[in-house]
Amino acid sequence: MKSYRQELWFETKEKREYINITPKVRAAVQQSGVKEGLVLVNAMHITSSVYINDDEPGLIKDFDEFLEKMAPYDKSRYRHNRTGEDNGDAHLKRQVFGREVIVAITQGELDFGPWEQIFYAEFDGRRRKRVLIKILGE
Amino acid sequence: MKSYRQELWFETKEKREYINITPKVRAAVQQSGVKEGLVLVNAMHITSSVYINDDEPGLIKDFDEFLEKMAPYDKSRYRHNRTGEDNGDAHLKRQVFGREVIVAITQGELDFGPWEQIFYAEFDGRRRKRVLIKILGE
Amino acid sequence: MKSYRQELWFETKEKREYINITPKVRAAVQQSGVKEGLVLVNAMHITSSVYINDDEPGLIKDFDEFLEKMAPYDKSRYRHNRTGEDNGDAHLKRQVFGREVIVAITQGELDFGPWEQIFYAEFDGRRRKRVLIKILGE
Repeated sequence: MKSYRQELWFETKEKREYINITPKVRAAVQQSGVKEGLVLVNAMHITSSVYINDDEPGLIKDFDEFLEKMAPYDKSRYRHNRTGEDNGDAHLKRQVFGREVIVAITQGELDFGPWEQIFYAEFDGRRRKRVLIKILGE
Repeated sequence: MKSYRQELWFETKEKREYINITPKVRAAVQQSGVKEGLVLVNAMHITSSVYINDDEPGLIKDFDEFLEKMAPYDKSRYRHNRTGEDNGDAHLKRQVFGREVIVAITQGELDFGPWEQIFYAEFDGRRRKRVLIKILGE
Repeated sequence: MKSYRQELWFETKEKREYINITPKVRAAVQQSGVKEGLVLVNAMHITSSVYINDDEPGLIKDFDEFLEKMAPYDKSRYRHNRTGEDNGDAHLKRQVFGREVIVAITQGELDFGPWEQIFYAEFDGRRRKRVLIKILGE
């Protein structure tokens, strides 16, 4: 059994950003030498998500509006913000979009459908944050 | 280490359907010969979900209404639909219900609680779409 | 390849509770002897969730209000409750917060970012319910 670990680091310019990390995950899978297995890709912070969907700019805008309507940025709205934070909304957005994805590796490749792309969704950026890639297989 | 891969194909009659795929996943686990491991079951398309919950018709209607209220089908509402698509709602519904489940395999069986059932949730059907089953273990 | 399985049992005092189970998952990882691998932690019931976020009491209250607003407890609101149940809301809350998390194991430890904590979220408690821990690796 082989295992492989890599971190991806981000420091977004905007508070919220949606970054296609598929090429980086693909490179990690090749680097690992794993031909049959699973790759876990997870946000290591609790105000960001990793998810799989389409890389279409209009859709990403729809996602952002959907989450902002559901859990708007608002300094005074959330109990969490009484601790001195202002990112209560980002914790909620992350809960809706999830922390992680698991993708099958088959014959050394990400075993994807036609439009699947892996995204890092930053909901409280402008600071250094990480994603973990962990690969298991052989 | 063993690995096993299988695709399930669907072409639903309705635009939205909720299909219990537990028997098919169970059969794949038996086919794989894996006694201790993990099975990943994921939608290979980005307008459908795989999730685990109860197989109760009233509940499934509740789920459908919940998602339709949160992200209604509407040709003009979503930026994504300006690309000529009409499935912006389906992308959003899929984000809420998620892409995949991972189930433990113990002694050759799905290691389930009393009511757990695996569902394929189609949000933009009437065309051929796939689910991936990937099993890892020994 | 090693595998390890453990159940955690809960019987909450309140209908809804959010319990930090990180120490128990950490102990299971040590018990398993797995140094490189994956740990799956999932609710075995369909009215509770396992998720990863911060252990901050204000935030947990925000989460609870968010879910209660989205899918309020209401005996007459849900079709599912016509079966004699009163937990339609709990099935919906669980869908939003998810069933499971997968965490990487690296050098025998949970491979976590600075604030990640694993929670069991009970949405229909006051009865005995279970979480499954399944570990795969070597």
